[in-house]
Amino acid sequence: MKLYATLRYVFKLKFVNKSVTQCRQNYIAVKKFSCVTYLQQKYDQKSQWGKSKQHRKVKLNLFFDTMADPKIEKILAPLRASVKEQGDLVRKLKENGAPDLDVKKAVALLKSRKKILEDKELSLAPTSSFDRAKMEDLLKRRFFFDQSFAIYGGITGQFDFGPMGCAFKANLLQAWRQFFVLEEQMLEVDCSILTPEPVLKASGHVDRFADLMVKDIKTGECFRLDHLIKAHLEKIAADKKTSIETKEECQDIVIKLDGMNKEEMAAVMKKFDMKSPLTGNELTEPIEFNLMFGTQIGPSGLIKGFLRPETAQGIFVNFKRLLEFNQGKLPFAAAQIGNAFRNEISPRSGLIRVREFTMAEIEHFCDPNDKAHPKFENEKDVKLLLYSACNQMDGKPAEIKTIGEAVSSGLVANETLGYFIARIQKFLVRCGVDPARLRFRQHMANEMAHYACDCWDAECLTSYGWIECVGCADRSAYDLTQHTKATGVRLAAEKKLAEPKVIDVVEASPNKGTLGKTFKKNAKAVTDALAVLSLADIEDLEKKLAGDGSYELSAGEQKFTLTKDHVSVKRYQKTVHVEEITPSVIEPSFGVGRVMYTIFEHNFNQRENDEQRTYLSLPALVAPLKCSILPLSSNTEFVPFIKRLSGELAKVDVSYKVDDSSGSIGRRYARTDEIAIPYGITIDFDTLKEPHSVTLRERDSMVQVRIPLDEISTVVHNLSYNKQSWSDIENKYPKFEQQENKGN
Amino acid sequence: MKLYATLRYVFKLKFVNKSVTQCRQNYIAVKKFSCVTYLQQKYDQKSQWGKSKQHRKVKLNLFFDTMADPKIEKILAPLRASVKEQGDLVRKLKENGAPDLDVKKAVALLKSRKKILEDKELSLAPTSSFDRAKMEDLLKRRFFFDQSFAIYGGITGQFDFGPMGCAFKANLLQAWRQFFVLEEQMLEVDCSILTPEPVLKASGHVDRFADLMVKDIKTGECFRLDHLIKAHLEKIAADKKTSIETKEECQDIVIKLDGMNKEEMAAVMKKFDMKSPLTGNELTEPIEFNLMFGTQIGPSGLIKGFLRPETAQGIFVNFKRLLEFNQGKLPFAAAQIGNAFRNEISPRSGLIRVREFTMAEIEHFCDPNDKAHPKFENEKDVKLLLYSACNQMDGKPAEIKTIGEAVSSGLVANETLGYFIARIQKFLVRCGVDPARLRFRQHMANEMAHYACDCWDAECLTSYGWIECVGCADRSAYDLTQHTKATGVRLAAEKKLAEPKVIDVVEASPNKGTLGKTFKKNAKAVTDALAVLSLADIEDLEKKLAGDGSYELSAGEQKFTLTKDHVSVKRYQKTVHVEEITPSVIEPSFGVGRVMYTIFEHNFNQRENDEQRTYLSLPALVAPLKCSILPLSSNTEFVPFIKRLSGELAKVDVSYKVDDSSGSIGRRYARTDEIAIPYGITIDFDTLKEPHSVTLRERDSMVQVRIPLDEISTVVHNLSYNKQSWSDIENKYPKFEQQENKGN
Repeated sequence: MKLYATLRYVFKLKFVNKSVTQCRQNYIAVKKFSCVTYLQQKYDQKSQWGKSKQHRKVKLNLFFDTMADPKIEKILAPLRASVKEQGDLVRKLKENGAPDLDVKKAVALLKSRKKILEDKELSLAPTSSFDRAKMEDLLKRRFFFDQSFAIYGGITGQFDFGPMGCAFKANLLQAWRQFFVLEEQMLEVDCSILTPEPVLKASGHVDRFADLMVKDIKTGECFRLDHLIKAHLEKIAADKKTSIETKEECQDIVIKLDGMNKEEMAAVMKKFDMKSPLTGNELTEPIEFNLMFGTQIGPSGLIKGFLRPETAQGIFVNFKRLLEFNQGKLPFAAAQIGNAFRNEISPRSGLIRVREFTMAEIEHFCDPNDKAHPKFENEKDVKLLLYSACNQMDGKPAEIKTIGEAVSSGLVANETLGYFIARIQKFLVRCGVDPARLRFRQHMANEMAHYACDCWDAECLTSYGWIECVGCADRSAYDLTQHTKATGVRLAAEKKLAEPKVIDVVEASPNKGTLGKTFKKNAKAVTDALAVLSLADIEDLEKKLAGDGSYELSAGEQKFTLTKDHVSVKRYQKTVHVEEITPSVIEPSFGVGRVMYTIFEHNFNQRENDEQRTYLSLPALVAPLKCSILPLSSNTEFVPFIKRLSGELAKVDVSYKVDDSSGSIGRRYARTDEIAIPYGITIDFDTLKEPHSVTLRERDSMVQVRIPLDEISTVVHNLSYNKQSWSDIENKYPKFEQQENKGN
Repeated sequence: MKLYATLRYVFKLKFVNKSVTQCRQNYIAVKKFSCVTYLQQKYDQKSQWGKSKQHRKVKLNLFFDTMADPKIEKILAPLRASVKEQGDLVRKLKENGAPDLDVKKAVALLKSRKKILEDKELSLAPTSSFDRAKMEDLLKRRFFFDQSFAIYGGITGQFDFGPMGCAFKANLLQAWRQFFVLEEQMLEVDCSILTPEPVLKASGHVDRFADLMVKDIKTGECFRLDHLIKAHLEKIAADKKTSIETKEECQDIVIKLDGMNKEEMAAVMKKFDMKSPLTGNELTEPIEFNLMFGTQIGPSGLIKGFLRPETAQGIFVNFKRLLEFNQGKLPFAAAQIGNAFRNEISPRSGLIRVREFTMAEIEHFCDPNDKAHPKFENEKDVKLLLYSACNQMDGKPAEIKTIGEAVSSGLVANETLGYFIARIQKFLVRCGVDPARLRFRQHMANEMAHYACDCWDAECLTSYGWIECVGCADRSAYDLTQHTKATGVRLAAEKKLAEPKVIDVVEASPNKGTLGKTFKKNAKAVTDALAVLSLADIEDLEKKLAGDGSYELSAGEQKFTLTKDHVSVKRYQKTVHVEEITPSVIEPSFGVGRVMYTIFEHNFNQRENDEQRTYLSLPALVAPLKCSILPLSSNTEFVPFIKRLSGELAKVDVSYKVDDSSGSIGRRYARTDEIAIPYGITIDFDTLKEPHSVTLRERDSMVQVRIPLDEISTVVHNLSYNKQSWSDIENKYPKFEQQENKGN
């Protein structure tokens, strides 16, 4: 059971299983987290909300300096108390060593009370004007992304990124590489997607990376079992004819569903006589469906492989080479950007739950006894919205703390974890995530595996509810240990001792001559397996050899029978200068599609007084294109200026788009706003006059200034790469006044 | 057979099947193409060969201005004549409309004579000092790349890129994006890897993307059939006891092997009684083995999918959206960088033939009647080594021509193709491919599919022989037409007519009312299928309705029986202002791993007088790291300078590595040379003195200069991004003289 908990934890961390129960499954117009709402309202009055980088910073500080709305808190008080009551019960049961089943049931109820509280919080926030259908229309119409193979009817859970989505994604990944890999001197790797079975057997994915499903016995249609049960019971509960007792029973089961096992769910199915919701046909018994895509490597059909379900394993299996590359020194971090695959039973929610996705993962390897971080000092004053496990148990809201306080008080387990949490926030905000809709939620003890000392998810509030975008956890030595066990290759580092130490060695010493004769080409496998035996194993071996004289040794899939001729146990003392340690791994893991989706939602806007004019306010850093060039009309005199500007912008690495189509200038601005182009250069009749000049327009404020032609490409370069701010430009150059919508 | 030829062509273009027969299969130390050798020898005397960017340019010009070595040409003359004789025979047979089989046999012999000529050319080149084992040792030791899952025993045909390989690859792809996508304003997309069967059925991959193999009937071990036969017959031919007749027969079969079909190969196997070379067991009959990795999408097991074998199809299926994004205008180009997969029967040759690889593909869509390119003028004077189909038939060597000459003489079919060929060469050379070992080889008529008007491969000479790194072909309307047929969605563009035209329309006009009643939800499929009927189909329909009154309509997999009530044929005239055209596609397709491998080989060097000191002279543009920081010793006074430099370099986007380990400075230089770091900053005791200064060393020349600390980060930035050349720096700053190997 421990391993199962472990794996559930690992997989949860990687965005599986969780948001389904955690997020709201129905559409909710974006509603703000209550304590955020209050200050947003205050801030909105200043009507500067979310306009530009500086504004975002102001917003962040305002947010962190303000407390929650007291009126709303009053309404939430009884719900908070109800969560706390149940949280206290869970604590007590655990303290008293109550039976597992009792604890599990209490935890399930705790979760449901937490959910009721969270739903209430969200519902109390004023409905924003966010319109998901409108945003999706924009994203599809301007081909940010669309369902893959749409002309063939499409495949659910797979998406193609068009030119604007692809450029946004490439810029986001480039920013990630700059922010994490280059600034931190991480070792970036690029590993295979196709993974042979033994690797994923060791990591636990082959045996347990599964969801329960049932099939329509006639059509073969599949249903994810928890979804099916929930939908069925909710339908019964909503029926007027249902008795109060049955309604309550249904609600009770839905609440406990997340903690139920296969047999319990099967019993519920039987009791309520569930059939296929599509055909009314009988359903099969629940089946464990492994979420990995399987295939065969090579022509023989004998080497089973899978598409990797996460990129992390590629780093772990290369640990030895990476440590060598780092000249044997700890700590160091490796990173990888790449695709991973999960055969979801029922993909949904657009980019949130898909079958093929890009991850960006970091594995920071460090001494388990020293998780200090040399650059923590730089980040210690960063303020974060932390939703601790304790507050979750007590029904209290998330709290604002500096990461320095959080680490020194022990809330966040160590400096390295704290350092990454702060860096993750900086990165997300820099790329366009609204800091007022970002929190770090700590896993509760019952969500956490035995080996993990701490784990925090960066969650973003969207119209799908709070969704996990980045996991940040201490995976301890779990993965390296598993691969060591499976391969016999020690994945460990050497640590210099403060002073030399005399140690007792107990060793299973192979007799290579006889081993070679008996086991031939398997002799090496036997020797390797002997070398990694634990002390307990060696003692067992000694006992067995002394007993009936033979010992059965497991080496991977094979078993070998050894006798006294093959191996003996030796005990001796030796002086050592280093000790071998299996490093701890701290893992920040980004779901790139989810981060992209959040940024879309947090930056989708409508112009005041013109709801049809929608635009995306992506920061210049990640915007697909930095600049547009718009000649006022098709006058041929403008052409040389277009050519000159195109050449100059390309030279200073500013991506641009010329829109010389026939629409009015206002209409063309609107079109470039839709694809998030932050700056627009207009060539007009004044441009033709000496000294030549153009206008430059900022997307969010729609303010325009007039700038000499000679300076424009440098200005746009500086704006695009954060070397100058728009207010610098507004201060320096004369404002250009023109009705944007003239002729529109 | 035509379609088969078509597909063979498409797949060949994508690096399959070809290099096995075209490259030399045994190890050959790098031997230069004969006409190259002569001038290389001349050039080597100046001992400047391959040193830096400027030198490369000099070399390129020298190469293009020089003719081949007359002594070598004399030896090759009879071989050239023998190729020409056979080439003429092939031409004559074709002219006279000889039976297919005769042509095929003549072509097979032509190919074998070409191979004998090429082998001779390579063998006449003096053996260079290139040592592949040494290079591979360096690449593995410094973890540029290694076999995937090595601790699990590895999987053939899969590789993981370590920190240096990954950074090199990322820089190469970034350069590609800059050079092609941004400069040309291409529409980059990022499409799904998992592809449903119907898409690859339409593209032809499901039916014909296969190699022949046989299996050991007891162990299941698989062998690629052509490899097996060749090895078997070569062994017989090498045996002293074999009669001369048999030897000749064996040689003859090996020569013709490439043109044999399944039955012919099976007959050869039977005749020579071939068994498994590993076990001596019987073998199965030949089996067509599809090279795609199959899997199931979704839990039902009913949706069959494959890992894409090329990225191109993702672009074709999105053609409509891309055209819309480009506001309906032709020409435009789309691009994609991504992974593709091929389940090779026997992967080999390191990065050259693998199961998982990265491609960078461009699909340039244009009017089939207008393949001019607006920027061709800029490239027309670029000189290229062109190996025309005609010269290949005549046994003549490749020739140097400007692309302008090649297009105007009709050798290269059109400007767009010519433009890309020139751009591909520029890109490859900029990234480190030796121009003296790069040629463009035209496909011969017998290699080319019926629809392709021209096709050129960029081939690089390596120790594996000439390998295809980039294909550049005109795929005409093949793919768009196939997907239109399969989906009923017209993948076409509208072209404005010079003047309006009156046309006769013949149309299968559906009666929507009765169709709806009869076919219910399938009515739309029927209407769509009617809309894409060809003129011949409509005439057939008219005849059948007039005859027995019913017509069987195919819509995808389904068939529907239509009567006069459902559909009628209408004829009328209408005035049209646009015509619908299916664009031609010109496709440059880069095999990223092959380009990387070539760059490794072309930049692997040993220091004069010290063979153990090997280094990689990658251009700064793609080098994994741009700069090293080396404190002369571990003196703590150096630390603040290391910190200051690190911060400054990061700020100007220069990647760097601090090596403060204890080795001598010479040893540390050698270590940074191995990982191709082009510039090294050393902090020494003079740095401590005011005004502070450091030394800067260039990797290839090992020349050092002394530069003020204030200026160093700008200098390294300028060098890294080609804004200043090393000779500029040498002229500006004082030379710093120190024995590099002191204390080494």
